[in-house]
Amino acid sequence: MSILVVGSVAFDSIQTPHGSREKCLGGAATHFALAASFFTDVRVVGVVGSDFTEKEEAVFKHRGIDIEGIEHAHGHSFHWSGSYVGDLNEAKTLSTDLNVFEKFNPKVPKSYLNSDYLFLANIDPVLQLRVRRQLPDVKMVCGDTMNYWINGHRAALEEVLLELDVLLINDKEVRMLAGLDNMMRAATRVLEMGPEAIVVKHGEYGATAFFNRKIFDTGRHASAMFHAPGMPLTDVVDPTGAGDSFAGGFYGYIASQPALTPEVFKRAMFYGGVMGSFCCEQFGTERMQTLTREEVDARFAAFEEMSHIG
Amino acid sequence: MSILVVGSVAFDSIQTPHGSREKCLGGAATHFALAASFFTDVRVVGVVGSDFTEKEEAVFKHRGIDIEGIEHAHGHSFHWSGSYVGDLNEAKTLSTDLNVFEKFNPKVPKSYLNSDYLFLANIDPVLQLRVRRQLPDVKMVCGDTMNYWINGHRAALEEVLLELDVLLINDKEVRMLAGLDNMMRAATRVLEMGPEAIVVKHGEYGATAFFNRKIFDTGRHASAMFHAPGMPLTDVVDPTGAGDSFAGGFYGYIASQPALTPEVFKRAMFYGGVMGSFCCEQFGTERMQTLTREEVDARFAAFEEMSHIG
Repeated sequence: MSILVVGSVAFDSIQTPHGSREKCLGGAATHFALAASFFTDVRVVGVVGSDFTEKEEAVFKHRGIDIEGIEHAHGHSFHWSGSYVGDLNEAKTLSTDLNVFEKFNPKVPKSYLNSDYLFLANIDPVLQLRVRRQLPDVKMVCGDTMNYWINGHRAALEEVLLELDVLLINDKEVRMLAGLDNMMRAATRVLEMGPEAIVVKHGEYGATAFFNRKIFDTGRHASAMFHAPGMPLTDVVDPTGAGDSFAGGFYGYIASQPALTPEVFKRAMFYGGVMGSFCCEQFGTERMQTLTREEVDARFAAFEEMSHIG
Repeated sequence: MSILVVGSVAFDSIQTPHGSREKCLGGAATHFALAASFFTDVRVVGVVGSDFTEKEEAVFKHRGIDIEGIEHAHGHSFHWSGSYVGDLNEAKTLSTDLNVFEKFNPKVPKSYLNSDYLFLANIDPVLQLRVRRQLPDVKMVCGDTMNYWINGHRAALEEVLLELDVLLINDKEVRMLAGLDNMMRAATRVLEMGPEAIVVKHGEYGATAFFNRKIFDTGRHASAMFHAPGMPLTDVVDPTGAGDSFAGGFYGYIASQPALTPEVFKRAMFYGGVMGSFCCEQFGTERMQTLTREEVDARFAAFEEMSHIG
C-alpha cells in the first residue's frame, strides 16, 4: 500500500557534541519518507528551492520514493539551523528561514490521489487540512504537530484532530494540548478531541500508545495502552529527525500490513523505535542512506528481546 | 528465602498536588520491606526513636516483616520533609532531621545471620560496608545509593560497588557516578566498577537493566540489557518511596525464586515496576497496607500485555 506524506523538505545546519553539518538534507517529510520507504511505497508533497539539486533527489530515488509531488519554486529551500550542544534531548533553534516554504500551498499530483494512507507531518494545520480534503477516501490518516501550532493555531489544529486516526506527539506537547500535567489524563483528554489513537513519544525512553479499541479492524486488546522501549545507543550523534523517523517506521509498517490489529499496532511501535534509533546514529539522513532492511529486522529482534520476558 | 534490608525507618512530612501528610511512616528500608514482603521473608535493620510506636510496628507486622533488628534509641526518629508541588518527578527537600539516625551503627541480630539475600538501602556507604561484613556468606548483595554519597563519599562508595551483585540507581545518578552523559556508556563504565548488573530507574518511564552475563545461575540472554516499562497512572498521589518499592518488588521476587535466570531477572524488573506504581497511588505506605498479592499479579499481567507484542 502507498503512503502520501506532506511536510517540509529542507536543509538543516546542525551542531551536536559529535560535530556539525552545514545545510544537509532534512525536513520532517524527508525523514518520514526515508524511514517509511523500508516498508512500503511513499510519495512526497512538499516544496523546495533551486538549491535542491539532483544530489538531494538521488537520496529519495535511491530509496524508491516518489517525489513527483515535490514542487520546485524560485528561491531557497526551507533552512533550519539548530544546536544540541549541552542537551541532546532538545534542540536550541539558532535560525529558521522559511524561504519558499513560507508560501507553500500543497498540491497533490493526480497520480497521488489513489494513495491509501496519508501522513500529515508537522506543518501549519491549515495546510494539513487542505491536503486532507484533497484525499477524502484514504484508508487512514496519521499526523504530527508541535507546540507552535498548539499554542498559536488551536482552532485549525482542532479541526485536524477530528480528521486523524492516529496522532503522534511528544510528552510535553500532549500535556500542553490537553492542559493537564498527568500523561495518562492528558492522553485520555486528547483522545476525546478526535484521534482514535495517540502515540506519545518519550525520546530515549520509547513511546506509549493510548487508543480507543474501535481503531482496530480485527482483534482485541484488553488494555487501552501499549509501551515500546527506546534503544539505548552508545552514541547519539544527531537526534534531528528521530521523531519523524519513528513516525515513518510506525506508519510504514502499518501501511505494509493487510489489516490493523492490536499486534500490528504494537509491531509498528517497535519499528518506529527501530527507525528513530537508527536516525540518531549519524547526522541528518546519512544513516538512512546506507541502512538495509536486514539491519532493521535485526534491531527489531533486539528490541523484542530487550523488552519481552519469555 | 529471606532478605535482610538495612536502611532508614523514618517519618515523612509530604506535600503533593493531591494533599499532604504530617509525619507518616516512611524511610527507604520501610518502603523496601513492605514491597518485598509480598514475595518473600524480610528482616529489617534500622534505628527509630521513641515516636515509633506500636502503631508503626503494626504496619510491618501486618505484612509479616521481622523487625527484631530495628533498634529503639533515645530521641526522635529520622524525619524528612519534602514537597512535590510543581514537580511530581523530583522532591524539593524542605528539611532533614537525622535525629537518632545520626549515630546509627547497624547491628545485625544473631537470628538474621542466616539471611540469604542482603539489600543495602540508601545510607552512608561506610554503614553499608559494615553490614555487608557481618554477612559475608549471603547468596546475593543488592544496593542503592544517591547523589549525596556519589559526590561526597566516593571512596567508601567504590568499596561498596565491589561488593554488589546488583546496583539500583536512577538516570541522573548513573551519569554522575560514571562522569558520562550517555546512559549506555555510563552504565557500561559503572559495570566495570564492580556490580554484575545495574538497574537504571527512569521514574515514570520504567527501568533499564545492563548486565554482565555471568550474573546468571543458569540460562543465557543474547543482549546485555533489558527494559521494563512504567505503568502510567491517572493519579500519582505521592511518589515518595517509589524507587524503594521498585527495589523491594525486584529483589523480593528474585529472592523468591530458586535460581537467577534471565527470565527471573526480567520478571523481577516487572514486579519492581508494579510495586513502584502501587506505592504512588496513595501517601506514604498507605497503599501497601491494603494491597493484596492478587492485585500485584493482576498488574503484572497488565504490564506484560502493555509491553509484549504477542
